[in-house]
Amino acid sequence: MNVKLFVSILFVALGSLHAQDPLPSWNDTAPKKAIVTFVENVTKEGSPDFVPPNERIATFDNDGTLWAEQPMYFQFLFAMDRIKALAPQHPEWKTKEPFKSVVAGDMKGLLATGEKGFLQIIARTHAGMTTAGFEQIVRDWFKTARHPRFNRPYNQLVYQPMLELLAYLRANGFKTFVVSGGGAEFMRVFASDAYGIPPDQIVGSMGKLKYEIKNGKPVLIKLPEVLFIDDKQGKPEGIQNFIGQRPIFAFGNSVGDQQMLEWTAAGGGARFMGLVHHTDAEREWAYGAESKIGTFSDALMAEAKKNGWTVVSMRDDWKTIFPPP
Amino acid sequence: MNVKLFVSILFVALGSLHAQDPLPSWNDTAPKKAIVTFVENVTKEGSPDFVPPNERIATFDNDGTLWAEQPMYFQFLFAMDRIKALAPQHPEWKTKEPFKSVVAGDMKGLLATGEKGFLQIIARTHAGMTTAGFEQIVRDWFKTARHPRFNRPYNQLVYQPMLELLAYLRANGFKTFVVSGGGAEFMRVFASDAYGIPPDQIVGSMGKLKYEIKNGKPVLIKLPEVLFIDDKQGKPEGIQNFIGQRPIFAFGNSVGDQQMLEWTAAGGGARFMGLVHHTDAEREWAYGAESKIGTFSDALMAEAKKNGWTVVSMRDDWKTIFPPP
Repeated sequence: MNVKLFVSILFVALGSLHAQDPLPSWNDTAPKKAIVTFVENVTKEGSPDFVPPNERIATFDNDGTLWAEQPMYFQFLFAMDRIKALAPQHPEWKTKEPFKSVVAGDMKGLLATGEKGFLQIIARTHAGMTTAGFEQIVRDWFKTARHPRFNRPYNQLVYQPMLELLAYLRANGFKTFVVSGGGAEFMRVFASDAYGIPPDQIVGSMGKLKYEIKNGKPVLIKLPEVLFIDDKQGKPEGIQNFIGQRPIFAFGNSVGDQQMLEWTAAGGGARFMGLVHHTDAEREWAYGAESKIGTFSDALMAEAKKNGWTVVSMRDDWKTIFPPP
Repeated sequence: MNVKLFVSILFVALGSLHAQDPLPSWNDTAPKKAIVTFVENVTKEGSPDFVPPNERIATFDNDGTLWAEQPMYFQFLFAMDRIKALAPQHPEWKTKEPFKSVVAGDMKGLLATGEKGFLQIIARTHAGMTTAGFEQIVRDWFKTARHPRFNRPYNQLVYQPMLELLAYLRANGFKTFVVSGGGAEFMRVFASDAYGIPPDQIVGSMGKLKYEIKNGKPVLIKLPEVLFIDDKQGKPEGIQNFIGQRPIFAFGNSVGDQQMLEWTAAGGGARFMGLVHHTDAEREWAYGAESKIGTFSDALMAEAKKNGWTVVSMRDDWKTIFPPP
């Protein structure tokens, strides 16, 4: 065999090996092995762990699990940008908290307004318009806003290894869902395209809506009232009400996901529970127990270790973090 | 050609004609033609009415649209049976309305307790247990309860023509949903099997849930508080919050579906709005404007006619009502 032919064959062989790896952005460490083993076990007919396709439900937290969440949840950055955009029509905000601090870019002042200030900002930016109007505002924001550190549109700060995982699960007959504390209507604007998950498989927090006929046409008005908060114990509650089946696979990254993982774990048969641990200050961020955003408490880490949940270290387990620009 | 061969060929030809008819239980009247024309138009690439598969959302009311609803919504008959089953443990119910009337089978007395009595019965039978416990109770009821007129399990009183319609839409790339005033958790027990619609595509009314750890295991407790009523204006509101996309195809049978049909109709592009009209006292029931159950008001009929919505007359348009026993 001449060298040229040998090299060609080698490249074809390597190419086909690469094509067969469903998770190329994952290092060959324990988490990848655990995922692949689980998927092979539940999909192999005759295996004691076999799960029929209609029960292959996989749920994913969004912020910090499927996309980044620093320096602040992106949806809240959207809300602050929106307050700034509306400020010229509201001269009274110059002296009125929490709007004053947002417009002045005074994060310390904003934090001092606490949960009350936070809720006022969400209500002012997420209610009082039609659902179609809100969708357009969010769509426009994704087109123009850039992340302060990475200078990329926010919807490009999704995790490449998780995109591969979603696709791998779907290729194996799983139905993939987002189950997030974020707003369902906010997420649906980008998440269907970004994750390949249709709008009806995106479960999130939501406000009450009001059906009205306006100028002879029906509209849905977003009211400043909470219908449902899809966080912490709200996650299993939301899973039951919206999905109606217990997941066999769940992935999160913080204390907000603890109950979803417990609920998943408590079902019969084979189960996979995963947590993303943000350990990569260089390529992303390193944070955990002390962070206000995406808190990964020591208690959660202890629970994960005790129960054999898979903890993914971004630094050690992921080859790539974000998709190429 | 001999006669035997001719007859064989004729039978094969008829067989294949039959196999090609996706709606064999529908008469060849206007509704069937309207459905087939619509589906062909939205699925034909290059057609001005073409709709990509991910936007082919079809929503169906349940009571009176996919299954029967007389002499009373089946879920309420379940609740009354459940009160009777619990009565021996509640001697105080002998003198306490609305339970007294239910146990005595006194419909007049029950009706006199009004909405308050109705809500008490629902709260007593649909809350105070785990979601798993409730599912088991409903499952057992379906096994044992029989419809008073047809003497069949309630889950066999689904409409054969609608089963064919659901399958026809799915074969053409539609995602089919139930959007019903009935309880989501009640419906999911039978509707996934009966309609081929997975639990997460069943939108209904729902109560609040509470996540708890009981004896070291997580459970979801059904609380006697309403989270969401999926009826009338609640239908478009529920469609937006749970499905996140406007349907292009919607079917109902009563004033509870009016807003869902209006919301569907108000989207751009080709749309199909359908209403089942119960006109068959012999094979099912004949009722409409005067009925308290499944009211089909004259105003709704006028709206349907004015806007070209398809009204299906059970007597004239359906060959079969229920599947063979």
